Amino acid sequence: MNGSRIIGQVRVVGAGLLGASVGLGLKALGVDVIVHDASPANLSLAIDYGAGRAARDTDNPTLIVVAVPPDVTASVVAAELAAFSNALVTDVASVKVAPLAELRAAGADVARYIGSHPLAGRERGGAISARADLFIGRPWVITAHDDIPAAQIGIIEDLVLDLGAAPVTMTAEQHDSSVALVSHVPQVIATLLAKQLLGSTEAAVSLSGQGLRDTTRIASSDPELWVQILGANAADVVQILRRFRDDLDGVLGALDAPTVPGARRAIAEVLAAGNAGVARIPGKHGQDRRFSQIVIMVDDKPGELARLLTEIGQAGVNMEDLRLEHSPGAEIGLAEISVLPEVEQRLVDELEAGGWKIAGAWK
Amino acid sequence: MNGSRIIGQVRVVGAGLLGASVGLGLKALGVDVIVHDASPANLSLAIDYGAGRAARDTDNPTLIVVAVPPDVTASVVAAELAAFSNALVTDVASVKVAPLAELRAAGADVARYIGSHPLAGRERGGAISARADLFIGRPWVITAHDDIPAAQIGIIEDLVLDLGAAPVTMTAEQHDSSVALVSHVPQVIATLLAKQLLGSTEAAVSLSGQGLRDTTRIASSDPELWVQILGANAADVVQILRRFRDDLDGVLGALDAPTVPGARRAIAEVLAAGNAGVARIPGKHGQDRRFSQIVIMVDDKPGELARLLTEIGQAGVNMEDLRLEHSPGAEIGLAEISVLPEVEQRLVDELEAGGWKIAGAWK
Repeated sequence: MNGSRIIGQVRVVGAGLLGASVGLGLKALGVDVIVHDASPANLSLAIDYGAGRAARDTDNPTLIVVAVPPDVTASVVAAELAAFSNALVTDVASVKVAPLAELRAAGADVARYIGSHPLAGRERGGAISARADLFIGRPWVITAHDDIPAAQIGIIEDLVLDLGAAPVTMTAEQHDSSVALVSHVPQVIATLLAKQLLGSTEAAVSLSGQGLRDTTRIASSDPELWVQILGANAADVVQILRRFRDDLDGVLGALDAPTVPGARRAIAEVLAAGNAGVARIPGKHGQDRRFSQIVIMVDDKPGELARLLTEIGQAGVNMEDLRLEHSPGAEIGLAEISVLPEVEQRLVDELEAGGWKIAGAWK
Repeated sequence: MNGSRIIGQVRVVGAGLLGASVGLGLKALGVDVIVHDASPANLSLAIDYGAGRAARDTDNPTLIVVAVPPDVTASVVAAELAAFSNALVTDVASVKVAPLAELRAAGADVARYIGSHPLAGRERGGAISARADLFIGRPWVITAHDDIPAAQIGIIEDLVLDLGAAPVTMTAEQHDSSVALVSHVPQVIATLLAKQLLGSTEAAVSLSGQGLRDTTRIASSDPELWVQILGANAADVVQILRRFRDDLDGVLGALDAPTVPGARRAIAEVLAAGNAGVARIPGKHGQDRRFSQIVIMVDDKPGELARLLTEIGQAGVNMEDLRLEHSPGAEIGLAEISVLPEVEQRLVDELEAGGWKIAGAWK
């Protein structure tokens, strides 16, 4: 209840995971959120869940967030532009070139439309999975275009900042080629890898480990949604998949004759390129950059962690997250806690004064 | 110190991650572990780290575990068979057909050799990363063959059970085709996917999310080791990679003309096959099957979690792991704790008697 940057009513169209999460996040800041969905059942679930209130004839939203599947995004945006002539409209679809082109072709008032895309999601969809904090710390792309006045972009930035996300400005074309690389192609590849498990023996899959689980996790995503995303960004996806296939052919050639001179070197170079590629991905702690992490050594005996947390509570500090790790047999465990950056140093000082050993602390 | 199933001395050759972890695990059971490494520096590090003692002229091991890179596995096994004529020898390499074939070709005494392979590992290698609990709950394949007396297999099973792993018996051929599917092909695919990130813009990789991180994590593995693994299992890996490439060509064909009738259906079918494939992988909680999970609802205010953990400590229960999740703004958090199965019900009863709400408990 710190107040929002956004001024006026916000209308959210589409009460799925993203729309309901936008509603929950803005309502927590005191914004008057109107929620709408083509399905009365979805709508009433989202309202029960606290994502917003039902529409009224007197509504006059400042901002409309369209959170519907990619295939219908342009037509819903066009309808909202026509129905609310004072409102700025954005959408949250995973593709950005196609909706803008469709809106232009349909003669919509694109001077009041700016596409956007929060890089956030969960494996489960629907309002029931929505969270007010879904966007915190995540990038949220805003795709400006020539027909939009610069001042309007500030309204979308306010939305993004209100929801705790990081605004990233790029063109629709830059967006689509970027997400092809970091999201759409990985989806295709994980899917094709998981597909190879069909028809394998139980004995083989019983040997599965974390590596296979990680490489295929996103293959459990919703096919209906992904057909739309891949179809709408086909050219960018194809371009990267062709490079992937050329590289795959290289590996196949080397593995077809692994003892031929040069074959091992060719495989090693691909593996080294993979090392270099994965090193380009921003680190996991980038996700939690709003919090400071403190790692405290804790004796592995009943009650020690409770004693630590009691002292943290007595210091008046609320933990945002806590993770305990220890190896059976080891004599100490490590408690990694997340706290707001402004209390980090004070807490470290108080814990050290109380005799705790701090293994590390960082922002 | 509950005593081991293994009787007699165990000699571990190769003091890397797997060898040192075998040593640590067996020493914790009171086994006399001899550790050896071609590198004096590695050897002395492993001994300092507690993985075993240095060899003596009077050593007479019952069992020898060869934990060296795949390329040199057969020659080291042959040398150990020759040097210790009373010992049974196993290895832990990720490929099993090639070492056995090489040993046979060299005329080694394969009646005293059974290959094996623990499906365990970490991203970091070396004795410094070794853990006594590395193998707990993991499958450990034992590859029997015609020249090995059945009684000898029992000795390897004792080793596997002593280290907390689950023995899985299959032929060397079944092993190699299984790990091609669940380990070697995922390694190649993750590597090729990560390779596509080279040359991309900073803006593009700044949009990376958990999906890309998961699909490419194993691409950071050691190229030198993986060249050996892929080279030694090339035929099995190629067979699956060709199927993968055929499927990829199908997707490329559909995405080349996504509006042609049938294209969307073809993509949807591949995505659905990916869903079905990933569903075949045993669940994540399978890893932790030695522990029971209890999820407790905790009010989101300072001191509440400490009060919970104090009560768990007062009940005399030691937690093996703890994870706290809550959304900022939500009024409750969820504490998921792992405990030994035998104390689960008693702890649930005591917590409920103390007024705590249990959101779930399972083994």
